[in-house]
Amino acid sequence: MKMAIPFKSPPPVKLSKFNLGLPTGISPLRAFNSQANANTINLGLGKPWEDMPPELRELVPRILKERLDYTENAGLLQVRRKLELHYGLSESSAVLTHGAQEAIFAALLALLNRGDEVLIPDPGFLAYAPMVRMLGGKDKFYALARKKNSFHFDPEAILKAITKKTKVVILNAPGNPVATLRGDLCIFLKAMEKKGIFVISDEVYGELVYEGVYAPLAQESKQVVSINAFSKSHALTGWRIGWVAARNPDLYKRLLVAHQYISTCASVPAQRLVGELLEDRNLFRSIIARYRSEYKAKRDLLFHELGNTELVRPEAGFYAFLPIPKTFSSSLAFAKALLAKKDVLVIPGEFFGKNGKRFVRVSFAVPDDWIKQAAAALKSFF
Amino acid sequence: MKMAIPFKSPPPVKLSKFNLGLPTGISPLRAFNSQANANTINLGLGKPWEDMPPELRELVPRILKERLDYTENAGLLQVRRKLELHYGLSESSAVLTHGAQEAIFAALLALLNRGDEVLIPDPGFLAYAPMVRMLGGKDKFYALARKKNSFHFDPEAILKAITKKTKVVILNAPGNPVATLRGDLCIFLKAMEKKGIFVISDEVYGELVYEGVYAPLAQESKQVVSINAFSKSHALTGWRIGWVAARNPDLYKRLLVAHQYISTCASVPAQRLVGELLEDRNLFRSIIARYRSEYKAKRDLLFHELGNTELVRPEAGFYAFLPIPKTFSSSLAFAKALLAKKDVLVIPGEFFGKNGKRFVRVSFAVPDDWIKQAAAALKSFF
Repeated sequence: MKMAIPFKSPPPVKLSKFNLGLPTGISPLRAFNSQANANTINLGLGKPWEDMPPELRELVPRILKERLDYTENAGLLQVRRKLELHYGLSESSAVLTHGAQEAIFAALLALLNRGDEVLIPDPGFLAYAPMVRMLGGKDKFYALARKKNSFHFDPEAILKAITKKTKVVILNAPGNPVATLRGDLCIFLKAMEKKGIFVISDEVYGELVYEGVYAPLAQESKQVVSINAFSKSHALTGWRIGWVAARNPDLYKRLLVAHQYISTCASVPAQRLVGELLEDRNLFRSIIARYRSEYKAKRDLLFHELGNTELVRPEAGFYAFLPIPKTFSSSLAFAKALLAKKDVLVIPGEFFGKNGKRFVRVSFAVPDDWIKQAAAALKSFF
Repeated sequence: MKMAIPFKSPPPVKLSKFNLGLPTGISPLRAFNSQANANTINLGLGKPWEDMPPELRELVPRILKERLDYTENAGLLQVRRKLELHYGLSESSAVLTHGAQEAIFAALLALLNRGDEVLIPDPGFLAYAPMVRMLGGKDKFYALARKKNSFHFDPEAILKAITKKTKVVILNAPGNPVATLRGDLCIFLKAMEKKGIFVISDEVYGELVYEGVYAPLAQESKQVVSINAFSKSHALTGWRIGWVAARNPDLYKRLLVAHQYISTCASVPAQRLVGELLEDRNLFRSIIARYRSEYKAKRDLLFHELGNTELVRPEAGFYAFLPIPKTFSSSLAFAKALLAKKDVLVIPGEFFGKNGKRFVRVSFAVPDDWIKQAAAALKSFF
C-alpha cells in the first residue's frame, strides 16, 4: 500500500478572502479514514456498528400519516414535552436540533463574543476547537488527568485552567476518544455559577454508560447547556436528530434564536420518529439496553484478544484509547505502519490533542471478526 | 381583539454575556404571526399552501429499504450527481444541506471575516442582516429600484452601493417579499469578478417563476454561490433539504467545511427522497408545473378581487407586496388595524427594510376563500 496518500489538509488558499477561523480542509480524522479500501479492517469510524434498528424502521409508516411541514423553531411541542419529561428536564428547556453537531454549533454561536476563551478537553473531540475559532472565540485546552495508561475526568484540573477570559467550558464525559465518567460535579458547578462561566455538556455517549442511569447535566445548574442526540443511543445517525437544553430562560432564548438562524427547525420526519420512540418507553429502553450490552461484550472481546491485563477498559461508548509502544516515533507513525502492514485502520491519538499523542483510538463498534483480526494485528505491534 | 400582544423582541438581557450580534428574540415576523388565532384569515405565512404532495409521500417506503446512516459530509454522491446534472451544474459543485437556511448560514460562515460588508436587498428577507451580524460581518443595504407601486431588480444600484469593504452581495430574485426577476446579469457578474466580490444567490423561489426556466446563477460565474431547496418548489418544507453550489473549487471546499461543522450531513432520509424525485423527471417537473399554475391562479384571484388595475402583479412565488393608503401612519399600524377590525393577518412591510415601510406582504399560498375574504377586507381599507 502506498503511503503517499494525503491525510493532512492542503495548504491554505486565498486565506485573506475566506473566514480566517475556518479550517482549510476536511478534518484530519476524515482524511485519514479515507485511506481505507474495501478490504481494510476499519476501526476508525465513529458510529454505531449497525444502521437504524428494524424496530424503528417499522415506525416510519406511522409518521407518514401526519403533517410534515415546518414546525415551530424549537420543534413540535408534544415531542419536546415527552423528551423533557423522559429526561427530567424543566418544561420549555429543550430545542430539537439537526443532531448533536448543530446543537454544539448553536450553543457556541449563542454564547461567544469575539475573543472569549473556551476550555476544551485534551484529548478530546476534534471538532470543538475549529468551531470555537470559526466563531471568533479562542480555544484553550484542559488536560484530562492521566493515570498510567488511562485518563480520568478531573474537575480540579479544569478549575485550574480557568482564566478571566474563560467564557465556556466544554465537558464530554463519557467522551470521545476517552470514555471517562463524569462523577460528582457539585463543587465544580458551584464554582461555574460563582464565576458566571457556562458549561457545554456534550452527552452524546451518556446513554452508552454500560452500568448506570443517564441524566442531563443541564438540570443540575442554570450555567449548563446539555447536548444529546439519538445518533449513538438509537443508531439514528443519518436522521440527524438531537437536542440542546438549558434551564436558564435567557440562555434558552438565545439557543433558540441561534438554532432558528442556522436551521429553521429540525427535520420534521425525524422529530415525529423520535416522538413515536419516546411514546413507547419499552422500545426506547430496550434499544439502549441492547446497544449497551453489545458494546460491553465487544469491548471485552477486544481486551480479551489483546491479552494485556494492564490496559484499562472503558466503562462506556465504543472506543478504546490504547497506548502505543515507545518504538514508534508518533501515533501517526504507528497508525500508518499498522495500515500499511496489516491493513488495519485506527485513528492516531495526536488528532485529539497533544495528550493523545502516545495513543491510538480503536472503535469496537464493528463486527466481532474484525475485532479479532484487529487485536491480533495490534498485538503483533505492541 | 386586544392589541397589547407583544410583537417586538423583548429588551436585551445580560447582553454582555451572550453573542452580541445575535438578535435578542425571535424575528418580528414570527412574533407578529403569533397573534393569529384559530379564526384569523392568516396571509402572513411564508410556506406552500399544502403539505408534502401525496406523490412524494408514496415514495417514502422505497427509501426505507436503503441505508440511512451517516453519509459523506457533502451528501450521497449519486444524489449530488443527479442534482448537478439536472441543473446543469459542474460536477462536484453542490453540497446537500439542511434546507436553504443552513445553506445561507454556511455560505456566510465560509465567506466572512470580521468587519466584512455584506450588501442586502431592501426590501428583503428578514434573516439576512441578523445572520451577517452574528457572524461578525457588517450588514449594508441596497435598494430595489422602485417604479410607482412595484419594485424591480437593478444591478446598477447594487454596483453603486459597493464599497472597498464589500465582500458579499446577496441576491434574491425572484425573492421575498418582492418577486422581481433577475434579468441579464452579465455585466454585473463581470464587475463582481473584477472586484473579487462574492455573490450569494438565494434562489428558493427560482422554480416558482410562472413562465420561464430556472437555472442556477452559480454556473455563470466562479464568484457565485447558488442556494436552493425543495421546500417551496416541491412543498417539502419540513424535510429540510436544500443545496448550495459553487464552481470555484476553493470556495466549494470552504462551503463543505462550514457545512461539516454546522451539521455533519443533510438528513439522509431527505437526501434519498430527493434522489428518488430527481430520478423521476416527469414527477419532478409535474409537481413544479402544478404549483406554478396554482400560484398564478391564486395571484390572479387576489388581484381580480382587489379590483385595482394599477397594482403590479408578481411574476413568481406566492407573495403580493401591496402599497398601503396614506391615511395610515405606518405599515405596522395598517397591519394591526386590519387584524383588529377584520381578523385578517398580513405582514408589515417595514419588517423587510425601510423601503418596505409603505407596503404590506400578502401571501396568496392559502385557500381561495381566504383570498376572497382577505381581498374584501383589504379593499375596504384602501
